[in-house]
Amino acid sequence: MVQHEKYMRRCLELAQLGAGYVSPNPMVAAVVVHEGKIIGEGYHQKYGQAHAEVNAIAQVTGRFDNHVELLKNSTIYVSLEPCAHYGKTPPCADLIIKHQFPKVVVGCRDPFAQVDGKGIEKLQNAGIDVVTGVLEEECRWLNRRFFTKVQKHRPYIILKWAQTSEGFFAPADGSRFWITGQEARKLVHKWRSEEDAILVGKNTVMADNPQLNTRYWEGPSPKRVVIDRRLELDKGLNVFDNSAETLVFNEVKFDVEGNNKFIALEDFDRFVPQYILYQLYLQDIQSVIIEGGAHTLNSFIEAGLWDEARVFTGNKVLAKGIKAPQITGILATEDNVGADRLQLFYHKPAI
Amino acid sequence: MVQHEKYMRRCLELAQLGAGYVSPNPMVAAVVVHEGKIIGEGYHQKYGQAHAEVNAIAQVTGRFDNHVELLKNSTIYVSLEPCAHYGKTPPCADLIIKHQFPKVVVGCRDPFAQVDGKGIEKLQNAGIDVVTGVLEEECRWLNRRFFTKVQKHRPYIILKWAQTSEGFFAPADGSRFWITGQEARKLVHKWRSEEDAILVGKNTVMADNPQLNTRYWEGPSPKRVVIDRRLELDKGLNVFDNSAETLVFNEVKFDVEGNNKFIALEDFDRFVPQYILYQLYLQDIQSVIIEGGAHTLNSFIEAGLWDEARVFTGNKVLAKGIKAPQITGILATEDNVGADRLQLFYHKPAI
Repeated sequence: MVQHEKYMRRCLELAQLGAGYVSPNPMVAAVVVHEGKIIGEGYHQKYGQAHAEVNAIAQVTGRFDNHVELLKNSTIYVSLEPCAHYGKTPPCADLIIKHQFPKVVVGCRDPFAQVDGKGIEKLQNAGIDVVTGVLEEECRWLNRRFFTKVQKHRPYIILKWAQTSEGFFAPADGSRFWITGQEARKLVHKWRSEEDAILVGKNTVMADNPQLNTRYWEGPSPKRVVIDRRLELDKGLNVFDNSAETLVFNEVKFDVEGNNKFIALEDFDRFVPQYILYQLYLQDIQSVIIEGGAHTLNSFIEAGLWDEARVFTGNKVLAKGIKAPQITGILATEDNVGADRLQLFYHKPAI
Repeated sequence: MVQHEKYMRRCLELAQLGAGYVSPNPMVAAVVVHEGKIIGEGYHQKYGQAHAEVNAIAQVTGRFDNHVELLKNSTIYVSLEPCAHYGKTPPCADLIIKHQFPKVVVGCRDPFAQVDGKGIEKLQNAGIDVVTGVLEEECRWLNRRFFTKVQKHRPYIILKWAQTSEGFFAPADGSRFWITGQEARKLVHKWRSEEDAILVGKNTVMADNPQLNTRYWEGPSPKRVVIDRRLELDKGLNVFDNSAETLVFNEVKFDVEGNNKFIALEDFDRFVPQYILYQLYLQDIQSVIIEGGAHTLNSFIEAGLWDEARVFTGNKVLAKGIKAPQITGILATEDNVGADRLQLFYHKPAI
């Protein structure tokens, strides 16, 4: 079991490299082990491209002339159950069977309806020895966005805000005020590159005219999501600059203007977080980072709809102002980022 | 110009090979011509994978040792304007510039907001001679689904039904009745493999218990879309078998059960076709084939929301029954398919 964990840990490291590039697929890696040596590794690098198992096996066939024999005597480790269905690529379970692996070690089961045990079953029916549940929690945690989408039918929700040490969020008049330093800002752009969407309310757009992109970090920019009930935002604001897609939730219209898609919601007073999350889910957006303002953050917190909160406390002083949101969660980590303090909370124990 | 058309026609042939695999991207092909000879060809084969230009250039670099010199003296033909932005892949305009092509021939401009002339401009700014509008209409027609999505903000809509020579659609009691033969059915499955979604109303699901897949043809199955206002359909019906995703438009609930996603609509009496089409658009579904029943087809026809109609007339006899839909369109072609007659209508002149 210790050996199994060692190779599964390598899978976890590799799988993580797909972050930001494989959504709406899960991050997955595979490692081929022959007589205690890793002879091939691979991970799912990009949505639409080869799965982890294909890449790991290809490394073996590319490197070794005697690959047919080698694979017949190797164990393949996969962080997520191999798929059993035809998606963008053929089933990986079939590939493993074809190469006659005697043993497969699986990190966790894939909850997606078209897999969900069928991959493991297919392998077992082919006479392969399947070990499951190795570093299971870690493997599920790695894909907490994917698991949330499949099991809760909504994106994984990360709240992010900065507050002063007195617990203020912004000046009382809502004007622009930077609480945190450059290091924190860079980290926030990294975070944005890891999520499918970024959401803010109307007041934040008005006060800060944000671009909501990843210009301080190398990586893909998320889809922008703005709540603007009565469509009061000026079209000259940065969020409407067409540089990325912007979804505008409102109660006025369904319409498209350039890269901006307007989506009218029912019952704007009651179900806004739920409706927005379902629309994002339907668009296969599996994670969203909510960056403000206080009203928007609070509406998700009150609905109990969040998974992580990343809270910076800066050393700027505001004598009074808008109060920062209050959450009840599990404090997981606490770190310094430049001159700021970063607390990471989870809403509930890990998936 | 005649030479230009010859190579652009080759692009059109190749691009078509991506049908069913590249959506929501457009189908595109590229051909590299050196001194009147095609030295490299490529097309966009699968969503998320390399663009046409990348594949065509790779064929040249893979085949010829003197590819650097060759490309510097070649013309590249592309059926659609090369992209100028970072999407799933880097901009193709940059690739063309890097290889120092002196001339680029473009079929039609890409209306997508992040391209829309910017690709052509980038090439021209790099000093490349750009010829545009070669077989422009054919190039636009090839991607009529993509153009419809980008310009009309809805999927391209194909209506399909079969009628008896007396103009009946089905027996009066709505029971199952096959009007057409095996050849027609096979062709219909081919059509399904070319579209992103297939839509039917509740009565059709009740009467025929259809699978709405492509089992008589090799190719991907479309997403299934069912209109079931009051959620009266039994969960044991084939459309709910989880073998493909099914969207269920209704007025009762937003919810997910396995692969079935329920989407509640407002104003079920008035705006059903419009709302459904917008939801499909938001999910990047760029084409839908509507296969019945008469009530569903008529609601789209009455709203003026269709692009093509493919109407079979069989030689089975029904003395009375549900009347087939009536359309006013342009009869484009008329053919025999087995023992049946197939008429193809366009709603308006080609895009």
